[in-house]
Amino acid sequence: MEQFKFDDKGLITTVIQDADSGEVLMVAYMDKVALERTLTEKKTVFYSRSRQKYWVKGESSGHVQSVRQALTDCDRDAVLIKVKQTGGACHLGYRTCFVHELNEKGQITKVTQDKVFDPDQVYKA
Amino acid sequence: MEQFKFDDKGLITTVIQDADSGEVLMVAYMDKVALERTLTEKKTVFYSRSRQKYWVKGESSGHVQSVRQALTDCDRDAVLIKVKQTGGACHLGYRTCFVHELNEKGQITKVTQDKVFDPDQVYKA
Repeated sequence: MEQFKFDDKGLITTVIQDADSGEVLMVAYMDKVALERTLTEKKTVFYSRSRQKYWVKGESSGHVQSVRQALTDCDRDAVLIKVKQTGGACHLGYRTCFVHELNEKGQITKVTQDKVFDPDQVYKA
Repeated sequence: MEQFKFDDKGLITTVIQDADSGEVLMVAYMDKVALERTLTEKKTVFYSRSRQKYWVKGESSGHVQSVRQALTDCDRDAVLIKVKQTGGACHLGYRTCFVHELNEKGQITKVTQDKVFDPDQVYKA
């Protein structure tokens, strides 16, 4: 893992892409342990900056991301993980987190996708 | 721009995707000014963390990224920009920066693409 450039908080930016459709599903962050677990367990594990804890994607929703291929970039400061996504990646119920289209002023003008699940049903208390 | 969550350095993570092929070309960072310029000028402008300066993609190589669509995610802390990429995105000569495939141990096992240009010719002194 020495070749990766983790930032001053020990994290590396990770892009999760649907291996079949090519959709960018989400961006999240991994520390060394989360990256090691993702590569060996073949399911994405992130480190939540806001909650300061590890987070196995799909552990409550069942919407896991099975790792198909992992790549790093020329600077070794980002990782691209191609996955098979069960359900939807976004906690709001969308297939991907990137559904809010921006205009020239940076304003959100529309939502580009329909929901694929009901978050109230999936994330029950 | 108030809706975006810039980090403690005033930056937001940006994923650049080929609008036609769906390839993830690169990950880079924008501050408020770079994001405003990208959305209005329709060419990607980044903020280099290492060089601490703005950086118009393609200004020396000619390999500009023309903005086709910009989206933000559910947390407003990342931006996805779909572009028409001239030439290649990677300064090493590849179409995308994510060409280094990783194995379970995080070791780079192969380069997944051939170069599309010769960086020694493109980035002349």
